[in-house]
Amino acid sequence: MRSKVYVPCEAAGAGVPFVEVSLSPSPGPNGPVANPALRLYDTSGPGSDPERGLPALRRPWVLARGDVEEVEGRPVSARDDGRAVARGALSAEAFPAAPAKPLRAAGVTPVTQLHYARQGVVTPEMAFVAVREGVEPELVRAEVAAGRAIVPANVNHPESEPMVIGKRFLTKVNANIGNSAVSSSIAEEVEKLRWATHFGADTVMDLSTGPAIHTTREWIIRNSPVPIGTVPIYQALEKVDGRADALSWEVYRDTVIEQAEQGVDYMTVHAGVLLRYVPMTVQRVTGIVSRGGSIMAAWCLAHHEENFLYTHFEELCQVLAVYDVAFSLGDGLRPGSVADANDEAQLSELATLGELTEIAWRHGVQVMVEGPGHVPLQKVAENVMLQQQLCHEAPFYTLGPLTTDVAPGYDHITSAIGAAVIAMAGTAMLCYVTPKEHLGLPDRDDVRAGMVAYKIAAHAADVAKGHPGAQAWDDALSKARFEFRWEDQFDLALDPETARSYHDETLPAEPAKTAHFCSMCGPKFCSMRISHDIRAMGVGDPVAVGLRSKADEFRDGGNEIYRQVGAVGSAPLGAS
Amino acid sequence: MRSKVYVPCEAAGAGVPFVEVSLSPSPGPNGPVANPALRLYDTSGPGSDPERGLPALRRPWVLARGDVEEVEGRPVSARDDGRAVARGALSAEAFPAAPAKPLRAAGVTPVTQLHYARQGVVTPEMAFVAVREGVEPELVRAEVAAGRAIVPANVNHPESEPMVIGKRFLTKVNANIGNSAVSSSIAEEVEKLRWATHFGADTVMDLSTGPAIHTTREWIIRNSPVPIGTVPIYQALEKVDGRADALSWEVYRDTVIEQAEQGVDYMTVHAGVLLRYVPMTVQRVTGIVSRGGSIMAAWCLAHHEENFLYTHFEELCQVLAVYDVAFSLGDGLRPGSVADANDEAQLSELATLGELTEIAWRHGVQVMVEGPGHVPLQKVAENVMLQQQLCHEAPFYTLGPLTTDVAPGYDHITSAIGAAVIAMAGTAMLCYVTPKEHLGLPDRDDVRAGMVAYKIAAHAADVAKGHPGAQAWDDALSKARFEFRWEDQFDLALDPETARSYHDETLPAEPAKTAHFCSMCGPKFCSMRISHDIRAMGVGDPVAVGLRSKADEFRDGGNEIYRQVGAVGSAPLGAS
Repeated sequence: MRSKVYVPCEAAGAGVPFVEVSLSPSPGPNGPVANPALRLYDTSGPGSDPERGLPALRRPWVLARGDVEEVEGRPVSARDDGRAVARGALSAEAFPAAPAKPLRAAGVTPVTQLHYARQGVVTPEMAFVAVREGVEPELVRAEVAAGRAIVPANVNHPESEPMVIGKRFLTKVNANIGNSAVSSSIAEEVEKLRWATHFGADTVMDLSTGPAIHTTREWIIRNSPVPIGTVPIYQALEKVDGRADALSWEVYRDTVIEQAEQGVDYMTVHAGVLLRYVPMTVQRVTGIVSRGGSIMAAWCLAHHEENFLYTHFEELCQVLAVYDVAFSLGDGLRPGSVADANDEAQLSELATLGELTEIAWRHGVQVMVEGPGHVPLQKVAENVMLQQQLCHEAPFYTLGPLTTDVAPGYDHITSAIGAAVIAMAGTAMLCYVTPKEHLGLPDRDDVRAGMVAYKIAAHAADVAKGHPGAQAWDDALSKARFEFRWEDQFDLALDPETARSYHDETLPAEPAKTAHFCSMCGPKFCSMRISHDIRAMGVGDPVAVGLRSKADEFRDGGNEIYRQVGAVGSAPLGAS
Repeated sequence: MRSKVYVPCEAAGAGVPFVEVSLSPSPGPNGPVANPALRLYDTSGPGSDPERGLPALRRPWVLARGDVEEVEGRPVSARDDGRAVARGALSAEAFPAAPAKPLRAAGVTPVTQLHYARQGVVTPEMAFVAVREGVEPELVRAEVAAGRAIVPANVNHPESEPMVIGKRFLTKVNANIGNSAVSSSIAEEVEKLRWATHFGADTVMDLSTGPAIHTTREWIIRNSPVPIGTVPIYQALEKVDGRADALSWEVYRDTVIEQAEQGVDYMTVHAGVLLRYVPMTVQRVTGIVSRGGSIMAAWCLAHHEENFLYTHFEELCQVLAVYDVAFSLGDGLRPGSVADANDEAQLSELATLGELTEIAWRHGVQVMVEGPGHVPLQKVAENVMLQQQLCHEAPFYTLGPLTTDVAPGYDHITSAIGAAVIAMAGTAMLCYVTPKEHLGLPDRDDVRAGMVAYKIAAHAADVAKGHPGAQAWDDALSKARFEFRWEDQFDLALDPETARSYHDETLPAEPAKTAHFCSMCGPKFCSMRISHDIRAMGVGDPVAVGLRSKADEFRDGGNEIYRQVGAVGSAPLGAS
């Protein structure tokens, strides 16, 4: 049985959520042997009526630090919801609850988790994270202080349950949601958020470009138990009616403040797309494929000036430090095809992101660095190696990578392969890819498919890295499988509902849930069953008597391999 | 547009099938520039009425060698269709066409492709394969002669289009089909065969254990354009009513001859499950999970005798040499959970499979070696290294491996990750895993899901290995994507139907197929579009004038990034 439990975290004065799977006992020679319950990491949040939003878990922690104050904040205008033509078509309902006044640094900045970690302070956020990860709080603090991990935690997003992104911790998964000019509504986006976190999203990025950008984001943040990321240039572009050359540092800065006051926890900033790198993309098979990257490239070319995000980067750091918004340094020149992987444009930008990382750190701002994209398998590990070296071990956050371009409709799979391999090599967070990639905006079912594929990739990497506790999940499920504890198998599954329904398709009757077989071999001969017989014989016992007598025992015990239903078992892997 | 073409192969006097994708021209500065058609490997076969079966393509080649004769063959009895109780329940229709008389070696054996390769002969099968792979016939011959590749080609399966399994060639994928006592009919199995080969199965294994085993296999072989594999111990067990201890070399041998006369191209033989290895499995989390392995383990324990497949291995070689049936040496002790990977039981058996490989080669019989199973990512490559070393570079044929146990219902994905990595390391053929693994028998849709996931894994590995021509497919699709040639994108997709339907979900109208945007960003700003603008400016031209004047040109040319439908483009990757 699955249930939600909260493990007390004294330092935070709060409970840390887990999904607890209680298990049936194993059969033993002297009767049933209890199996301990298994606790799984839980991102689903406390749940609530979407119109009310989630409780402000972190607000007391933030206020207790005494470094922020309520301010009137930047006035919100209709313009914040996008360009005029789109606003006209908009029937977006404002989030019903009155917005809290924004918090910002009362005086001295930074107010960031990085700042406190460097001071030797274990914040409630870090303590919470330590319980969540099953590690010592000091490990969290030390990794954050060194810049090797981040705890995205805007003071204006108190609804979020703290989490950590860093290679010493569990590999995380981000889910992208958001509307476009031709697709989706606010209700759909909130539902996608709910599905994403239900299926394990550790963070969610709202990439809306369509109408009602500000309003959509308000609904999302107020309902999100996980950190929210954005790409502010998308909204800035809407504010100038889509004309990239009309963008300016002022419009951008205004947008960043707007979003920071709403509670965005990390922002993708394409400050590494330098004017001189743009020509490097001309001979590529797929040019520039990052939307933010191409916006900045267009701006640079139109003005023949250096990227304003680069030239104003220190000012941007000063803004983010006021709210504890983390940087996600965008890879605007990432490859959009395996042909373009690890090329000069990509790696030149990466080196610049390394410089920017150090600047952000000097301002006390948390940083992670984004990575590709489309990369053939033999070039995947090099991406992590170079990023870790050039960016001084700042956490790496990659989109896939897709390991082949030939399977539109299945890019959750082409990229889960790359994601598992890049995570094993040290990537801290994976941005999911859904089956709709390259073809359309994901719907709720695509969010599920993408999330499950990426939770698999992340967990496979955690097992490969020997992350403490990761393989315990596999072992518990395999033991349940070997012992024909079907209900435990379903409850332990990454997606219990799907596992159960697939089993029931061929063997729907309730007794099949306790049967010692499945429809793969049927109620005749089961490979698992014979293993139990062998074990029961004590064949492996070091002081066992000779095998000859064991053979007699086996035969005398009625070893007909053909057994009727109830005395036989399930074949785990189809072949041979 | 996709069409089926046949490339002449003079040496075989036959055409070699390909799917040819003809492409629209690219836009160029001086008008359209033609794109060459791309040819893709094609496994779908010529098609036919299932009641008539496929034409006997290879029969003239086989007869021309003058080394076989028609014989009366082993009489087929009702017993061949399984145990009495199952036969009673059976309404299986016999395959309508009268069976051809079986062929077998007329005198001297072997009559195998290995034998001819060693004599320096390029058989029509090898010549056909060379065209199919785009390599020199001599490479095929040399690899087969060295045992590093096999061309499964039973003289009694003339319907098959020759293919090669070896690390120097394209990575192959096998699809398992077959009924069980509780599931499926002959018509369903033939339909699964059709779907598997339509989606790229290079070989198909009929793992039927349920009723009508012989009759089901006849329908499958007569309709299969790809080599068929089986696990003869499954049928042998049915002949002794499911009692493993009642199995004998005689029953097994009779079954192998029966299947060889029908035309089975390769057989999984669990001859490496030695009596002394069985106790090594007792402390495992999941014991023995191979059905064949556990049958042989049960037999060994019941009799306290060595595995009769091991003790009679040379006789078995003599039988297979008469028909050119290839060995697939089964890994009966493969791990069924990540906890059991690369353990003593698995690796001990692997060493024995290496000994058996050499024995088979002495008899002129082709050999491949099966591998796991469930293996965490960090232990995957070691499997290939050890297998290649212990088994003298005989082709490796692995089931997945699954990289985590926690996702029943999604094991096509947990295992596609392992499959891509193990293929990159040198595995020659991958046995697919479907979403139903561990839960039930796959239906037609599961076959499709498993096949697509594994074609992705195989192709990702081929690209990573730098297989000649592999990346050309990716590049053609990415170029089509970059140029908004939507129809070409769909036609080049691994699964065109799915790609098209996903696109149409959000943008169903026909004009959207030529639009320079998709629903991800909508008709506003597209990252791809700006790359075209940059390219059109000649920014990357080595003799280009200064960027300053380029900027003017860009701006003067009407660089509003906001363009109306028809002048904008599609964002390839969702994030940032």
